Amino acid sequence: METENINIGLLGLGTVGTEVAYQLIHNNNIINNQKSKVQINLSKVLVNDINKKRPDFLPTDKITDNPNDILNDNNINLIVELIGGDQIALDMINQAVDKKVNIVTANKLIMSKYGHELLTRAKNNGILLLYEASVGAGIPIIGPLYHSLTANHINRINAIINGTTNYILSNMSTGTQTFENALKQAQNLGYAESDPTSDIEGIDAAYKLSILASIVLNNRITEEDVYREGITKLSAVDFKYAKDLGYTIKLLAIGELDPENVSLRVHPCLISNDHLLAKVEGVYNAIEIQGNPIGNIIFHGEGAGPKSTSSAILGDIISIANNISNKGANSPVNITDTTIRYIDYIHTSSSYYMRMSVQDKPGVLAEISSILGKYNISIASVLQTTHNQPDNIAELVMITHPAVVNNLNTAISQIEKSNQIKSVDSLVRIEDLN
Amino acid sequence: METENINIGLLGLGTVGTEVAYQLIHNNNIINNQKSKVQINLSKVLVNDINKKRPDFLPTDKITDNPNDILNDNNINLIVELIGGDQIALDMINQAVDKKVNIVTANKLIMSKYGHELLTRAKNNGILLLYEASVGAGIPIIGPLYHSLTANHINRINAIINGTTNYILSNMSTGTQTFENALKQAQNLGYAESDPTSDIEGIDAAYKLSILASIVLNNRITEEDVYREGITKLSAVDFKYAKDLGYTIKLLAIGELDPENVSLRVHPCLISNDHLLAKVEGVYNAIEIQGNPIGNIIFHGEGAGPKSTSSAILGDIISIANNISNKGANSPVNITDTTIRYIDYIHTSSSYYMRMSVQDKPGVLAEISSILGKYNISIASVLQTTHNQPDNIAELVMITHPAVVNNLNTAISQIEKSNQIKSVDSLVRIEDLN
Repeated sequence: METENINIGLLGLGTVGTEVAYQLIHNNNIINNQKSKVQINLSKVLVNDINKKRPDFLPTDKITDNPNDILNDNNINLIVELIGGDQIALDMINQAVDKKVNIVTANKLIMSKYGHELLTRAKNNGILLLYEASVGAGIPIIGPLYHSLTANHINRINAIINGTTNYILSNMSTGTQTFENALKQAQNLGYAESDPTSDIEGIDAAYKLSILASIVLNNRITEEDVYREGITKLSAVDFKYAKDLGYTIKLLAIGELDPENVSLRVHPCLISNDHLLAKVEGVYNAIEIQGNPIGNIIFHGEGAGPKSTSSAILGDIISIANNISNKGANSPVNITDTTIRYIDYIHTSSSYYMRMSVQDKPGVLAEISSILGKYNISIASVLQTTHNQPDNIAELVMITHPAVVNNLNTAISQIEKSNQIKSVDSLVRIEDLN
Repeated sequence: METENINIGLLGLGTVGTEVAYQLIHNNNIINNQKSKVQINLSKVLVNDINKKRPDFLPTDKITDNPNDILNDNNINLIVELIGGDQIALDMINQAVDKKVNIVTANKLIMSKYGHELLTRAKNNGILLLYEASVGAGIPIIGPLYHSLTANHINRINAIINGTTNYILSNMSTGTQTFENALKQAQNLGYAESDPTSDIEGIDAAYKLSILASIVLNNRITEEDVYREGITKLSAVDFKYAKDLGYTIKLLAIGELDPENVSLRVHPCLISNDHLLAKVEGVYNAIEIQGNPIGNIIFHGEGAGPKSTSSAILGDIISIANNISNKGANSPVNITDTTIRYIDYIHTSSSYYMRMSVQDKPGVLAEISSILGKYNISIASVLQTTHNQPDNIAELVMITHPAVVNNLNTAISQIEKSNQIKSVDSLVRIEDLN
């Protein structure tokens, strides 16, 4: 379909669909102005219950409970499938493929079970079927496998791709919590479903691993090709022993991908505390790709949730827009040359680590803190030692509360003039990266 | 230029160019067969010294020391610029842009200083200028910023994007090594240049940060817009204090990217040991992107070296091939359906963590190790405790050397039959992720 408009039919208005609709309507500036000349519009949204109250930003005339209002609308040229589950979603995707309508989906179950056929039919029909959100939500992984990493022989994937189980295992890592309690806590916080089977038995991770493996091997791979073991048999004491031995227990999805010797498996395992995957906490996901020539690459981020998921879905929508407008690969469309408002470095603020050599006598700290105070800088902590210093000179280490760099520089130059202070030896910002 | 061939002129045959040439010639199967119908050929390679011995895989008739043999060859439709540095490389890229030849470059200096003008002219001339390798080598970051992450408001970048300084700082982290010694060691290992200024003063990181910021803000940003502070003033004792206080010292490239308040800076700083960036060791790089709706994403990998860099360059070459063949976004080209040789899970092998409840008397361990030995399983370490166990039952924890799963399962079922063993309570793989 030749067009300069993308008209989106959104199937499903759960938490992810609501976020996508919000971004399409409220952040339309970033989605439309920057990267593509194609105009992206949200045309219609399919809901289950037409009478349910919907968010204010969603006009009622955009809402329908009849799939045909979307699937038979010839103006709609992009379907975003967020229904989830199996047969109903598959039927709708199949109808869209037949009608040669581009598709974006987050449906890992469908892409695992039927991705091979769907992608083949989509290709034959000249449309795009994109599914970045189906693995690791917004973490870019499917895009990089198709693009930046595409020249590699990828021989292994080690992935934490189920946030629910990683949350439970993180909580059990102290060795004091039972699986049952950790699961209950995850359920209370909304990180686990009331029926948690798909997560805790590794089924969800197996879907995702099969999707990644099918891209790497460019072949039909489904969750049935994945060996699975869940996390239900782990005891608190195993975490204690693992810790004593220098390990952490994680549910890994592992793909050994030498085409002659493929092993796909999801199971709990002990991994060394030194490995970065051991540091992946709570509901975060991380995917390690080992390949040649690339070496080891790790992608880390929030692998679930409406915000992260919507990032991937919107990225796929924009990819399709760029494809339609034929602007393909990394080509910035409207390079701007507007004025940027820089903050001068001296007007930024930060906590600071300071080390100075000072006279070892009363009153020195009072003088320093008085000078700092004059410039609104307060001291967070002080550590004084006489670390190999010559007679009567002490080494003073302190950390400040956040201060404006300009103020700090002025204060330091005053401190340096004091005859109680020999030298300011070190001054390093502390970045609170949260 | 309409064509079904990509004919590459490679400018520069240092370590990166040699790896790219090798991959184009020797791994041509993965590059050509899988993802694009466009045939990719290496046509000509520009070298400084025509008489120098070259690798065997490179036919002499492909080598020239005259740039015009490439720049004036109308069959060449893709230039890969790996000369590095400033004016000479820029002249050649400019000539390629004028001739409407696609360009792939790893040149961070040129993309930082002149990227804005070059990308604008490339766009106006209808060609692609791709530069994934210019930041973080093979770590996919420019691609994801243009594609998967493109719908986000990115408000902050925290990046370790200079391997040399990260190697030096990692070595100093114990608090016992001077900067001078750590630098010398890096130079001896080839991780630092004989003139290390560009790395240790943060110039290299500033180039890379300005490239990332210019993509996020879609604007002209050069290294001159970046505040810089090097790592030369840090003392061993600062690392000791930082450690005592729960921090690690890293050279961060930080972009605060709210368009109304932009701050770009490269400087050493203390970051909390709890943050993943504190775990980035040696010559590795990591780039954290904070955005809305995505949240925080971290990309981690080898940020330098011929192998990692060639992954990015080859990815860009294939992107251009896909663009020419009009296959754009994530569309697998030739989906295959060949037989995959799976290894059955029971034939994979692994070390194992085992926990069992056993009779607390002599001979138990002998029996277990004899059963294991029968199946070629040897014990790596044993940890026996009587951890809250009822009378006469001990808890036995052991780790095996790598064993075939099938053998292990058989051995366990025999162990379970022994009347000296009450139960095998836990059996978890140990993955050696290296």
